[in-house]
Amino acid sequence: MASQAITKLRDHLSTVNDIQGALGLMGWDERTFMPTGGAEVRAERRATLGRMAHEMFVSSETETLLADAERESIGFDPDSDELALVKHTRRTLDRQTAITSELASEAIRASSLGYQTWISARANSDFQAFLPALNRIVDVNRRFVEAYRTVQPDAQEDYDLLLEDFEPGLTAEEITSVFDVIRDRAIPLVAMVRERAVDVDDGLVHGDFPIDRQRDLAMTVIKQCGFDDKHWRLDETHHPFASSIATTDIRITTRYIDNFFNSAFFGSLHEFGHGLYERQVSPSLERTPLARGASMAWHESQSRMWENLVGRSRSFWEWAIGPARDAFPDAFGNASPDDVYRAVNRLHPSLIRVEADELTYNLHIILRFEMEREILAGKIELDKLPQAWNQKMEEYLGVDVTDDADGVLQDVHWSSGLFGYFPTYALGNVLSLQLWQRINDEIPSLEESFAQGEFGELRTWLGENVHAHGSKYLPKDLMERVLGTRELNPGPLTNYLEAKVTDLYGA
Amino acid sequence: MASQAITKLRDHLSTVNDIQGALGLMGWDERTFMPTGGAEVRAERRATLGRMAHEMFVSSETETLLADAERESIGFDPDSDELALVKHTRRTLDRQTAITSELASEAIRASSLGYQTWISARANSDFQAFLPALNRIVDVNRRFVEAYRTVQPDAQEDYDLLLEDFEPGLTAEEITSVFDVIRDRAIPLVAMVRERAVDVDDGLVHGDFPIDRQRDLAMTVIKQCGFDDKHWRLDETHHPFASSIATTDIRITTRYIDNFFNSAFFGSLHEFGHGLYERQVSPSLERTPLARGASMAWHESQSRMWENLVGRSRSFWEWAIGPARDAFPDAFGNASPDDVYRAVNRLHPSLIRVEADELTYNLHIILRFEMEREILAGKIELDKLPQAWNQKMEEYLGVDVTDDADGVLQDVHWSSGLFGYFPTYALGNVLSLQLWQRINDEIPSLEESFAQGEFGELRTWLGENVHAHGSKYLPKDLMERVLGTRELNPGPLTNYLEAKVTDLYGA
Repeated sequence: MASQAITKLRDHLSTVNDIQGALGLMGWDERTFMPTGGAEVRAERRATLGRMAHEMFVSSETETLLADAERESIGFDPDSDELALVKHTRRTLDRQTAITSELASEAIRASSLGYQTWISARANSDFQAFLPALNRIVDVNRRFVEAYRTVQPDAQEDYDLLLEDFEPGLTAEEITSVFDVIRDRAIPLVAMVRERAVDVDDGLVHGDFPIDRQRDLAMTVIKQCGFDDKHWRLDETHHPFASSIATTDIRITTRYIDNFFNSAFFGSLHEFGHGLYERQVSPSLERTPLARGASMAWHESQSRMWENLVGRSRSFWEWAIGPARDAFPDAFGNASPDDVYRAVNRLHPSLIRVEADELTYNLHIILRFEMEREILAGKIELDKLPQAWNQKMEEYLGVDVTDDADGVLQDVHWSSGLFGYFPTYALGNVLSLQLWQRINDEIPSLEESFAQGEFGELRTWLGENVHAHGSKYLPKDLMERVLGTRELNPGPLTNYLEAKVTDLYGA
Repeated sequence: MASQAITKLRDHLSTVNDIQGALGLMGWDERTFMPTGGAEVRAERRATLGRMAHEMFVSSETETLLADAERESIGFDPDSDELALVKHTRRTLDRQTAITSELASEAIRASSLGYQTWISARANSDFQAFLPALNRIVDVNRRFVEAYRTVQPDAQEDYDLLLEDFEPGLTAEEITSVFDVIRDRAIPLVAMVRERAVDVDDGLVHGDFPIDRQRDLAMTVIKQCGFDDKHWRLDETHHPFASSIATTDIRITTRYIDNFFNSAFFGSLHEFGHGLYERQVSPSLERTPLARGASMAWHESQSRMWENLVGRSRSFWEWAIGPARDAFPDAFGNASPDDVYRAVNRLHPSLIRVEADELTYNLHIILRFEMEREILAGKIELDKLPQAWNQKMEEYLGVDVTDDADGVLQDVHWSSGLFGYFPTYALGNVLSLQLWQRINDEIPSLEESFAQGEFGELRTWLGENVHAHGSKYLPKDLMERVLGTRELNPGPLTNYLEAKVTDLYGA
């Protein structure tokens, strides 16, 4: 047997993967169906299984099996599952081994405390109350930076070492060069939208939208896109997410607001995009660490594609107006596809990122990325964050922040210890448009087919070119395969946004 | 620290328990919400976690920790959680260690094959097709008998060694002396019911029962009994069950039939009884092997109590008629409590155990127990089972079996390898009536309070006297504590059944 050692490694990793799969189910259950009283015991159980998975992974057994597999895989086809598994495991093992168990548990404590503190600090809009917890979290992140530097000694700056967990191979400098372009083209567009006397009427999407009919419509639409009951579920939750219990068992969730159409509808399409990625990973990668998306930005490129490039397109509404009228004759009975297209695309600078439109969304991300980078570089004092935040919000969005709860305290990520994660949200938008160009080049009739409710070509293209590979390739290697470039290019995104502004608000 | 060694043992067992808890959630999910396509990967994951829990339990680490704990616990209060944990672990460990891993995996293969074979054999009503798989299962059980005899050398007969897994401390001989009484009193009652020209009218419970309203009514009733959303869920499934994910997280399921009232209503009460048992286990036993019912018969005594002694009582319907009329005005609007009481208590000998009434149910169990015992004792050839089954059905119930699918092949248990499990279903009925006498002695107004929809006294009594102890005590020790006797006594059950027959069908 040529691949005896790799088979052994793979079996060992499958066992770790099975524990992680159980943890995934526990996490899904907690956020959908678990009675609240079960939380305490569940936390213990997750801690136990998490510790076991970690111990099994960073064990000397993994190291031995991996070393054997590395010797065996010399000369293997670079596109083979086997070599990809060996390389991925080496990369992850080295990073995880660099983290002492003392640092790992300090990180859990700091984020657990940080989350609790953030909850009450946000409720009271009291940034000072959150500051000590944030300090501790930043300290922990600096210790992670130190640890990661031992395996990545040539990293340009500290930020890159944290980013590596979410977007391997990318640097803060590259992100900045992309974000600067977006920022500098978006700010005047935002100002223009604000200044125009006429606004787009989005009254259509505000009104009476009974939840059971929202659910039926969301199901109709995502089934048309590729959701099937044999492999998918759609449930309700407070903070929507997608979770792949297996590539054959995809669970997405959404949140219903009974007087606002967009939330559940576009939220379902967004999570469908995440789910489809994991659903179309090659079965040969099941129960391995490769059975997931290549990176956060790659994942987000898929969810934003289905949410925005499909769901907020004019041609999509040529078809979707039918099911939408059936579900909500009062709201949509007399509306044209174009009416709905305009209503769901209204641009409106506002305080809260998760409610932001396509144009302003990126600016929310960019301002936080800029602050994160300054924090890590020691260029800003933590107690100055609210002022810096408010100033940037005014500068980028023209929005006046009067309350830290809806300002610097709005997002959970920092409180949970996540630094380096945020930029991937906007990078996903960038990547989705680069992909969109390529897909439309290859399938010129793509958008016309949406008007017929046909999404199979898009699904298949994504499956074959992107999804099937799982995380076999590093993000930039996957870009090179799919797009013929290793560079994130903000051009297609900014062109798209400019065209949309012109379409909706005039030249 | 006096209990240092026991604390270490307990922590170790909690880790095993956490894995089992994850398996419990996976099992619940499989039978409620999992998309069917997820089954294959789920099976792999369960196998991995099951193997890990087993390996951790039968490890030399457990043996060492247990030996230390045993030394430390000498002289401990026999009622202490600590001593109970030590004794329970010794008993379980010795039995599990007696099983070689080769036998354990042969058992899994045999039951997996057995189940598949049974499915198609039952569909074709072809006992001969099932026979080879049954032979293999019986062989495996004989090998279990041999293994268990090494730790229980003085067992009277082979059957007792299998029974020990479900009803520790009980013997086939004792069961026979109980079952003979029930059988000999039930057979003439069944004959009498069959022969009477007048039958009870149960038209009330057949008709149009929309499922959403069945669900609402079931929820109303079990909430009145003690179900609360903070710690319980009720979901739909094909084969109803109760599952405690934790004592604080109880999940029960039911099955709705849209033209038959009894199935979901009494099924919900039945599973509520199982769930309440695990819900009221003392929090001090959480995450230990003691956080479950004392035995199968003890468990079944609780489910049958809520299903039959509460739910099929006259006084219960004095209250329940109100919610039932609200839910189903067409069916129950003009019915009196007594009308419903009579309809839901109709006795009718039939082929299928799971649909059987209170009187005939026990005879279904007894005939299978008698056959199981003969099989283990080598007194009957497996290929003679259908004839033996049909003859007993005629003799006990006056029912003519024309089809093995609805005869000897009707139940899944044997195909899954379970021998020694069946009698606990009827023993639960026996025990429920012994408990019922005691409870009514201590709370003379109990049944009157049901007429007011008050079930708190019963719930509290069961919690304090039975549930809180979990499986700290062996079944007979628990009987002695609660009932002052170590003997299962069929008298209360047969008296109860006789009174019911008289009430419904005249003397």
